[in-house]
Amino acid sequence: MEAWNQLTTRIEELDALGGAMALLDWDQQTYLPAGSGESRGKQSAALGRIYHERFTAPEVGGWLDTLESGALDRVQAAAVRNARRRYRRATVLPSRLVEDLSHARTAGFAAWMKAREANDFAPYAAPLQRLIDLSREQAERQAAPGQHPYDALLEDYDPGSTIGELRPMFERLGTELNRFLDALAGRPHPTLFDTPLDVEGQRKLSERVLTDLGFDRVHGRLDISEHPFTVGMGTDDVRITTHFHADNFLAALGGTVHECGHAMYEQGLPAQWAGTGLDKAAGMGLHESQSRFWENFIGRSEAFGRYLAPRMHGIWPTLAVSADALYASMNRVERSLIRIFADEATYNLHIIARFELEVAIMEGTLQAIDLPAAWDDAYRRIVGVVAPTAKEGVLQDVHWSGGAFGYFPSYTIGNLYAASFGARIEADLPDIWQRVERGDFAPILAWLREHVHAKGHLDDAPVLFREVVGDRDPVEDLVAHLWRRHGKLYGVERSVQA
Amino acid sequence: MEAWNQLTTRIEELDALGGAMALLDWDQQTYLPAGSGESRGKQSAALGRIYHERFTAPEVGGWLDTLESGALDRVQAAAVRNARRRYRRATVLPSRLVEDLSHARTAGFAAWMKAREANDFAPYAAPLQRLIDLSREQAERQAAPGQHPYDALLEDYDPGSTIGELRPMFERLGTELNRFLDALAGRPHPTLFDTPLDVEGQRKLSERVLTDLGFDRVHGRLDISEHPFTVGMGTDDVRITTHFHADNFLAALGGTVHECGHAMYEQGLPAQWAGTGLDKAAGMGLHESQSRFWENFIGRSEAFGRYLAPRMHGIWPTLAVSADALYASMNRVERSLIRIFADEATYNLHIIARFELEVAIMEGTLQAIDLPAAWDDAYRRIVGVVAPTAKEGVLQDVHWSGGAFGYFPSYTIGNLYAASFGARIEADLPDIWQRVERGDFAPILAWLREHVHAKGHLDDAPVLFREVVGDRDPVEDLVAHLWRRHGKLYGVERSVQA
Repeated sequence: MEAWNQLTTRIEELDALGGAMALLDWDQQTYLPAGSGESRGKQSAALGRIYHERFTAPEVGGWLDTLESGALDRVQAAAVRNARRRYRRATVLPSRLVEDLSHARTAGFAAWMKAREANDFAPYAAPLQRLIDLSREQAERQAAPGQHPYDALLEDYDPGSTIGELRPMFERLGTELNRFLDALAGRPHPTLFDTPLDVEGQRKLSERVLTDLGFDRVHGRLDISEHPFTVGMGTDDVRITTHFHADNFLAALGGTVHECGHAMYEQGLPAQWAGTGLDKAAGMGLHESQSRFWENFIGRSEAFGRYLAPRMHGIWPTLAVSADALYASMNRVERSLIRIFADEATYNLHIIARFELEVAIMEGTLQAIDLPAAWDDAYRRIVGVVAPTAKEGVLQDVHWSGGAFGYFPSYTIGNLYAASFGARIEADLPDIWQRVERGDFAPILAWLREHVHAKGHLDDAPVLFREVVGDRDPVEDLVAHLWRRHGKLYGVERSVQA
Repeated sequence: MEAWNQLTTRIEELDALGGAMALLDWDQQTYLPAGSGESRGKQSAALGRIYHERFTAPEVGGWLDTLESGALDRVQAAAVRNARRRYRRATVLPSRLVEDLSHARTAGFAAWMKAREANDFAPYAAPLQRLIDLSREQAERQAAPGQHPYDALLEDYDPGSTIGELRPMFERLGTELNRFLDALAGRPHPTLFDTPLDVEGQRKLSERVLTDLGFDRVHGRLDISEHPFTVGMGTDDVRITTHFHADNFLAALGGTVHECGHAMYEQGLPAQWAGTGLDKAAGMGLHESQSRFWENFIGRSEAFGRYLAPRMHGIWPTLAVSADALYASMNRVERSLIRIFADEATYNLHIIARFELEVAIMEGTLQAIDLPAAWDDAYRRIVGVVAPTAKEGVLQDVHWSGGAFGYFPSYTIGNLYAASFGARIEADLPDIWQRVERGDFAPILAWLREHVHAKGHLDDAPVLFREVVGDRDPVEDLVAHLWRRHGKLYGVERSVQA
């Protein structure tokens, strides 16, 4: 057990370093003075370098070799599997490639910013192609024999997910979502709630909602940042940020509920497995399922509107708002250009289009120079919209400019998982919606804690998902949920189509 | 120059690690959730361990050997001198002693907290004696041949200061201060300003004062914490905290001005010497001179009262306050029991008493068990007060419970340096007080930047001090300043006594 003790001691040290790196990042997005970037950059770089050095040290490989040749219990086996995967992925890359990628990411991000500013893709093509070439090299080096290069990248964000499983799911989902959107198109939508609300009142309401949902403030906090995010620096220190907009109350609240879902997952991870690496998320898709579950399945429900309206009246006594108006306003569905503003249904079409493009990029059949045309074509076919300029199209998202190919699917994996978790919870907790209306979210959180959070990374997310939902079909669960949720508002019913 | 490049690269890395450690600490005192202590403890411990490991690595000693045997310019020579001193002090201690000290500090702090709670020194005696024994061993190991063990400890906080120079200065200062306090004793003091003021207004005024003094908010910020402190995480990121008390406005403002002095020193350190270790304070006494200069020499002056009063009227238009009342209230002088609440004069008697006790402890002539009686005796002789219970006496300060013997002198060294800097500035800037009254502090800060801050740690503080003030006598400067400052208020004049 000497190797096990050494491995877990090292992982604990790496987690402590990771926590410090997370604080550097949190601070950078919340309180760092405007002119302190240089020191912060050096601090982050130094910790990143030391983290990499201590994680990829030869002795770590030695401990893994020893452990793999011995008898391990379930926790140990899972810990060794996870550590071996990360170790292999990190050590298989030559340092020349790691450095090139690092520079290409910096250059790619800068070029993307400039291209957006100029609303012109052309000058971004070369830096993007450089990132594509290096990412393909990375994928090929990291791929196991016979593994698709895209799967090799996917593994970084969502270990266990594969193109072979995602592609048919995404195809079915795309078809069903287009049917759904076609059925709703042009139909009148109930009036929207869009009264501007003072930021201080919004803050109070957010604090109240976070407390009701179950966010643990003894082990977490809420701050303000330009872009909302969640960061865990340990299961006992999980922080979320939000950004209030006076004239877009529902979007800000939805964002806060979304981050709360991420945060409650982090807070529910199994602290007793510290040092094994199993006290971590089982994948970004599963992480996203927790945020989407709370943001969409709970947070856009009729019952949540009925929970919210009286709490809003408590803060703004003269405000004219009804539960029905909130419910309707939170569920406007319409094909649209921008992913981050998309509704619960259209959102997935954005992901499916990008998935198709990313796979082609990794298979070498799509070059950066051809991306704008391929983007427009994919969006026309899959999302049903065409961007008037590059800014609303191929330049809208940051991910590729940082070489993050393979990240986008997590969002829709999250929506799919969330739909099946929702269906299971409705079966297990028959009075769920009465409870939501009362603001009694505890049984829902307890269900997620037991079935999802407490499992940590004992299994990869696809395995955990199957254990929780059995043979449920997440595509069908998501589509059925959307028809139920929106059909009533738009006065349409799902019909079986050929 | 290979060794120089390697040394400076390592120092830059250590500084980056130190910056991250400083952020962990800042966050712990400002925003850390109440229940996140365990993760934070692990993060700080991991970074501390890695810092120590990389600083004390044998290759560092090798680089220093190489550099010491070659030709060095002034900056390099100073960098090598500083690094060698720190390296020797760190590597000369066996790891058994380092661990014992670490445990003894934790136990000492806990015992001190309990002893204070119970207002009983007895149970604290054994843990304190353990700290004394280990600190004496540390001092003996760190001492150069013939160096007094107390000087070996002093070197950690104030390199270049020695018991041989401090003792006669402190003796003269103690005598002069007692004459001064005797002259003032029992004389009527002008009425005090003690109107409670709302915290929000105090915050606004503090922000205004900080800006006027020259605190750079692009490279710093102000937050709230239980105990005010300053932390630099690089010359481009210097943060101060304060704590507002509705019913003690002047103390809170004084604390903010004090921290501002520390912060402006950090902000003025020579960033161009990053990686040499010379972009650091030249000692804690010099650091303290910067906070004391602003807090006392400037912040308690008549001119500062005239600067402050109209700004207070701007925030509290109906407030009855005059510049004279502020001046008088900031300068009440009276022998008192508690160091941190002591006035500008009595404060130094507290330090002189502790210095005498610390030296006896390090010379082995004073044991923990005898400390309460020795404390009361020293306070009776030197400060002229006797504490009714241990809490107001020997248990009042945390320093010794953490093994920080040799730190106390810094405070009075700071006051002495500040007095001579003040005298020099008055000579160099004849219109200084008119400027202070107008809120034009820029020439004063510029003077300190040029003569003190920009020098970094090129020389140890005592050398730097002499370069700046020539043969001025800091004891005479401080005593003369106190007579001038307070004589008018109390209606007494200094007379030459036998």
